This record gives sequence, C-alpha cells and structure tokens, in this order.
Amino acid sequence: MRFTSETSSDGVCEQLFTLGEMSGVLWTPEGATGTRPLIVMGHGGGQHKKAPGILARARRFVAECGFAVVAVDVPGHGDRPKEETYHRIATENQARAEAGEELAPLIAGFQALVARRTVPEWRAVLDAVQQLEHVGAGPVGYWGVSLGCGLGVPFVAAEPRIRAAVLGLGGALATAEDAARITVPVEFLVQWDDERVPRDQSLALFDALASAEKTLHANPGKHGDIPAFELDSALRFFSRHLA
Amino acid sequence: MRFTSETSSDGVCEQLFTLGEMSGVLWTPEGATGTRPLIVMGHGGGQHKKAPGILARARRFVAECGFAVVAVDVPGHGDRPKEETYHRIATENQARAEAGEELAPLIAGFQALVARRTVPEWRAVLDAVQQLEHVGAGPVGYWGVSLGCGLGVPFVAAEPRIRAAVLGLGGALATAEDAARITVPVEFLVQWDDERVPRDQSLALFDALASAEKTLHANPGKHGDIPAFELDSALRFFSRHLA
Repeated sequence: MRFTSETSSDGVCEQLFTLGEMSGVLWTPEGATGTRPLIVMGHGGGQHKKAPGILARARRFVAECGFAVVAVDVPGHGDRPKEETYHRIATENQARAEAGEELAPLIAGFQALVARRTVPEWRAVLDAVQQLEHVGAGPVGYWGVSLGCGLGVPFVAAEPRIRAAVLGLGGALATAEDAARITVPVEFLVQWDDERVPRDQSLALFDALASAEKTLHANPGKHGDIPAFELDSALRFFSRHLA
Repeated sequence: MRFTSETSSDGVCEQLFTLGEMSGVLWTPEGATGTRPLIVMGHGGGQHKKAPGILARARRFVAECGFAVVAVDVPGHGDRPKEETYHRIATENQARAEAGEELAPLIAGFQALVARRTVPEWRAVLDAVQQLEHVGAGPVGYWGVSLGCGLGVPFVAAEPRIRAAVLGLGGALATAEDAARITVPVEFLVQWDDERVPRDQSLALFDALASAEKTLHANPGKHGDIPAFELDSALRFFSRHLA
C-alpha cells in the first residue's frame, strides 16, 4: 500500500493510495490515532472512488461518527486503465437494450463478472487498511448502491469482517444466492420508481437476504433520487451496529 | 372537554379527559406553557388509549421532543361502553375467518365502518385540545398502525391540520381512495411477514398515497413485531416535519 497524497479539510484527512493495480482513497478524522470502525464504500457504475455521492457520505461518516472510510476505483473506472473486455460488454449491452432487450438481466450479468475481481480486491484493501495505526482492526461496515450493491452483495457475503451493510438500488437476478449467505444487519434502499431495477426484483433481493435484522427503506423517485434523509438514517444505522 | 385526573412522572404530565361520549388522554411536558406540536395517536384493535405501545411512544414524543400527544378510546374500546353492532360484526368476522374466509377484506370493511365515527370524533378532539393554553394551534402529526392505520388514513385525508403521519400495518382494501387524497409526508411501516395484512396490499396502500414525500420502512417479522428502532425513526420524522 503506497500513499500518493494527503490533504485535510474541515477535520477530515484524505489519503490517496495505490495497492497493486488498485487506486483508492482513505478518509479518517484529522489527527486520528488508534482503532476505529471502518466503512468500505462501493461506487456506482460510471462513477469513481471520489464521486460526489461517495465523497459527501464519506465525509459525514468521518466527521460525525469518527469512522474511517475507504473506497477504491472499480476496474475500468476512475484512475484505473480502461478494461477492454468490460468496455466491449457494456457497449454490447447498451446496443441490446436499445434494441429492446430487458436491461436488468444485462446489468446483473455484467456486475457478476466484475464482482469476480472486486471481491478479492476489496478483501485485500481491508487487509491493508486494517494494518494502519489510525484505522486498526475495528468493526467494519459496507455501503454501496446500484453497481455498489451488485458488487457489494458478494463482497459482504464473502467477508466475515463486515458486521453491517447499507445496500440497495439492485435486483435479485445476479446476487440472490450471495444474498442468502448474508446474515449481518442490512439497511436496504429501494427507489419506488426506479427505471433501471424493476420493483419486484428489488423486493426479491431484500427478501433473499438471510439477515435476522434487515430493514427496507423505499422512497418515491427514480434510480438516482435517494432522498437526503437516507444519509442521516445510514449514519445512525452504522453508529448503532459499529460504534 | 372535562379533565378527570392529572398525574405526572418523569417530566410527563398525563391528563385523562372526557369529551362528549369520548374518553381520552393528553400527555404534555410537565409545566408546559404555550403552543407546541401535537401528535394524535390511534390505538390498535382490541387495545385502548393507554395501551403499552401507545403509552411508551407518547412518553418519548413528549419527553424528547416537547410535543403534546392525545389519544382517545375508539368506540367499544377502553373506558367506552361496548358497542353491540361492532361486537356482533367482529364475532361474525371471526367465525367467517375460522370458516376459511379471507381475513383482510373483513378487517377492512369493519375499519371503514368504525372510521365513519372516529373521523368526526378525532376532529372534535383536535378542536378542543388546540384551545388549551399548553397545546395551542401548532403543527399536528398523526401516528397509528393496524386499526390506527385503517382509521388514520381517512382521518389524515379529511383533516388539513395534519402535516405529517406515521402509518402502517394496513392494506389498501378499504382505504386506497382516502390514501389518494393524502399529500403530507408519510412514514409507512410494513411487517414483511405480517400474518394479518398481505404484503401486496400493504405495498398497494403505500403506492396509493399521493404524498410527494413518503417513505416505506419494511422489517421482517409478524404483525406485532415492529422493531424498537422504528420508534427512534418516528421521533426523527416528526421532529423533521413538525418542530
């Protein structure tokens, strides 16, 4: 793990790093020492580790809860080189969707393919970050919606260090089997008028989670329209389960 | 409106009252003066104005938010005389359900009948309580699940003073038309394994609400198993919309 830059603002320290092929970012409270809860964040499709939605949430997790937050670019995103295979599949999927094919199964298949790489990558990030003195091996949470849910469900299922997860904007097509292996508390976000994920597939993914404590939050609006009060809710959810 | 008793504990003042045929209870912060937000609470079937679930929520709304809370016995419940008509219908419904008839439409029909009385009753309570110096004509919220939802939906639809409502454990059968006239923010509770209200009817009632801001919270478990953290959420919801 190699840190390439460090900046601070409003009490939040931001460190860019590389780890193997990965480019990532770690946020911690300024001047932090010692072990603390850590949130791994997975970004959305076409976004990157410092997309506005990731950054805004990460800063609040750090500033208000004292947590550490880490996010890495998904292969083919952000500072990572273009992935020819992914690019080709994405282009083909777009053409097939425009030709009238159902979008959700195409997205699900693509996310399952990418997850084969991100699950081991994110576990390696967790190993590395938990060795840092100002993060340590404290309780771990995961936050990810849309692509971050499609990649997050297999990650949370595979990684016993994760104790709680906020997931959502994702369907059961590719991830129902993994979801059935998740037993930690989950807060699951559904956009009631999601144009990308059919409502019944969202509800089926929530249904598939094996967690004794799982709570579904559905709000009106399209895929990208999660209301601001859901971030307040995520803060309290992680505080309840990790702090 | 005639007060029949007044007691205080842990900073919460409890006043029992009668108003016409109604028996009710008003909770306010001890020593309160001046206008404050008011929550009207509707109790569940077979319960009463001071049922444990009502009392526990009311005390927290008062103690933590400084709100006033009022609840009245539904006709045939609590301190009110037995209602022969309701009793007969309830007994008939029970027999029909035991004979294999679907329960939800029977419950819905019964609740619609009772609502014809409770809507004008609760509006009269609101008139009276808002004239008290320590309550006043502040913003009003409604909290009610199960029977409290079946009676609450027509009440919230009819009463322009209500600015936000927590509803749930109810289906669309009797109340969808009223729900379509509700435009205030709603937090809507669904028990994912509700043995009394079919899931699709719960989701249909949420769907029918005309509110631009409505949020559905679904949790695993049966009709009576709302998790404790939903009370925290209701406190924040009312604080956001009424305070």
